[in-house]
Amino acid sequence: MTVALNQEVQTAISALAGRDISHIFLVGCGGSLSIMHAGKYFLDRHSGRLACDVYNADEFVCRDPIRLGPGALVLLCSQTGATVETIRAAAHARQRGAVTVGMTLDPSSPLAKSVNLAVPYESSYATGIPIDAAKSNYAVLLSLLAHLLEIREGAKLISPLSESLKHLQTVIDQAHESCSAKLTAYAPLFARQRTIYTLASGAAFGAAYAFAICVLMEMQRYDSQAIHADEFFHGPFEVVDKSACFIVLDGLDETRRLTARARAFLLKFGAPENILVLDAADLDMTGLDEAFRPYLAPLALFDVLWRFAYRLADLRRQPMLEGRRYMKKIANY
Amino acid sequence: MTVALNQEVQTAISALAGRDISHIFLVGCGGSLSIMHAGKYFLDRHSGRLACDVYNADEFVCRDPIRLGPGALVLLCSQTGATVETIRAAAHARQRGAVTVGMTLDPSSPLAKSVNLAVPYESSYATGIPIDAAKSNYAVLLSLLAHLLEIREGAKLISPLSESLKHLQTVIDQAHESCSAKLTAYAPLFARQRTIYTLASGAAFGAAYAFAICVLMEMQRYDSQAIHADEFFHGPFEVVDKSACFIVLDGLDETRRLTARARAFLLKFGAPENILVLDAADLDMTGLDEAFRPYLAPLALFDVLWRFAYRLADLRRQPMLEGRRYMKKIANY
Repeated sequence: MTVALNQEVQTAISALAGRDISHIFLVGCGGSLSIMHAGKYFLDRHSGRLACDVYNADEFVCRDPIRLGPGALVLLCSQTGATVETIRAAAHARQRGAVTVGMTLDPSSPLAKSVNLAVPYESSYATGIPIDAAKSNYAVLLSLLAHLLEIREGAKLISPLSESLKHLQTVIDQAHESCSAKLTAYAPLFARQRTIYTLASGAAFGAAYAFAICVLMEMQRYDSQAIHADEFFHGPFEVVDKSACFIVLDGLDETRRLTARARAFLLKFGAPENILVLDAADLDMTGLDEAFRPYLAPLALFDVLWRFAYRLADLRRQPMLEGRRYMKKIANY
Repeated sequence: MTVALNQEVQTAISALAGRDISHIFLVGCGGSLSIMHAGKYFLDRHSGRLACDVYNADEFVCRDPIRLGPGALVLLCSQTGATVETIRAAAHARQRGAVTVGMTLDPSSPLAKSVNLAVPYESSYATGIPIDAAKSNYAVLLSLLAHLLEIREGAKLISPLSESLKHLQTVIDQAHESCSAKLTAYAPLFARQRTIYTLASGAAFGAAYAFAICVLMEMQRYDSQAIHADEFFHGPFEVVDKSACFIVLDGLDETRRLTARARAFLLKFGAPENILVLDAADLDMTGLDEAFRPYLAPLALFDVLWRFAYRLADLRRQPMLEGRRYMKKIANY
């Protein structure tokens, strides 16, 4: 399966071979935007030639950066391929002369038709049907970028990533098992909270962002937001007392000491039963190349949190997807 | 005063004349990071040559992007000039061969001594002593970038910005007057809230971010966070009911329709008395060049909110600067 995926990605990237690209814009909305933060981190760490911006799709269209032109590659993502802002962003980028690549579940969607190259992925979040995580938008994004960097800048990234992706689903399945008891213990107290913050840094920030806005706020109506682990100390930490509720995502990338510091503060000044720490260092990452663990860990952490949300949903008697009151429920907002 | 300021900025930028710069990193923490979002917006709109990233200082050091090298200009800001992360970021950037410019209140501070070029500014927020807003970090940042773009890319930006800055404080003083009755009306209800979100987009996002984390959370212990006006519709809007409390900053830049949409939603599904809208279009901007109004409006909106915070502080009997429990109160967190 990974091989087939790689072939699609390879085809997409090879089609860009003749383009002189100096800037990548990673564009989406909500959950589809959240994965782009890990992509940006990966590019920052591996590319000397490509500048990169991450933008909400409508912000991108209105902002219309001067650098958006023939030298730009715009990589967009929309689950349904029907997100109005993202389709508009693809059209706008093409009009500016940029090359566009669109990731979507649906190869016949408007987004797929709006871009130069469409790359499909799979998702279990919307359907509940299990997938191989190697086919997720998160993994496909990393594959696209790894191929781009190997072909254009000579980095040796495709082989270790492809090997790692063969083991990713197993790593995630084991993460669910190893975290299960902890989540069971934390769920009752978290279910009764009104506000839950998520805290992360580096490649894991997007996972914290997605869980805060697309799960806790969107599906469970908590007050929530993602807080960057060092920004925490420049304002947000003043809300911490024994009743404050935080989820800390400890990743494996170079920013790890930032979350370690915030975690220590939270465990000291907060109540440990209100501080749920998910540390990627506790997960069995067998089969994942050392160099790719920092980039793949956030997906495992998010997947674990996704199941945690279902426990909260049961306890709160607030259904997940079906419980939304505005999204896909009312028209023309 | 503006002339003197311009001379300092001019000197700083002229010193960079020989450098081949292709990337600007805008770096700080908390409030000093928040102003960078407007700088990034300004660069996106005006520079075809300079790529730009905005990073929390410690994220920047750990992430250590490959593009941080002799072709990079790193512009840092720290009010006291003593922020550990920001000083570390300056040293790290110089070690990587980048040229560093540091903005700080204190020309003898560690940050000022760590950078190639130190540029002073003034602030009334920390001291309570009124200043000319043309000397604020926000205005100095725009001046630095305008000089850089005019000298390097031939944009005609210095003269209209300098003229505008002569009138900025008057615009802000008038904004305080014209918003006063509204803030008096909203303060009692907002003072009783537990959670207040701020919502903005484009050049105004940083103002919403600063007010949420450095004022509402840090000084008044509200649960809060800034929400991007379009991201709002991809999750966060599900928390909106008649009890939800939002501050909407309507700026004047190209993203204005994003906040207009969110504002309409909030006024429809929320309770109007819980939705405080500050619209820059309602302010008297006489003297500000049309092209610079989008970039200067967020500072006026933030300054208005700063006074609103003091009304909340009085009603909550929670002092502003003195009421913090961790920041500058405990050591070694």
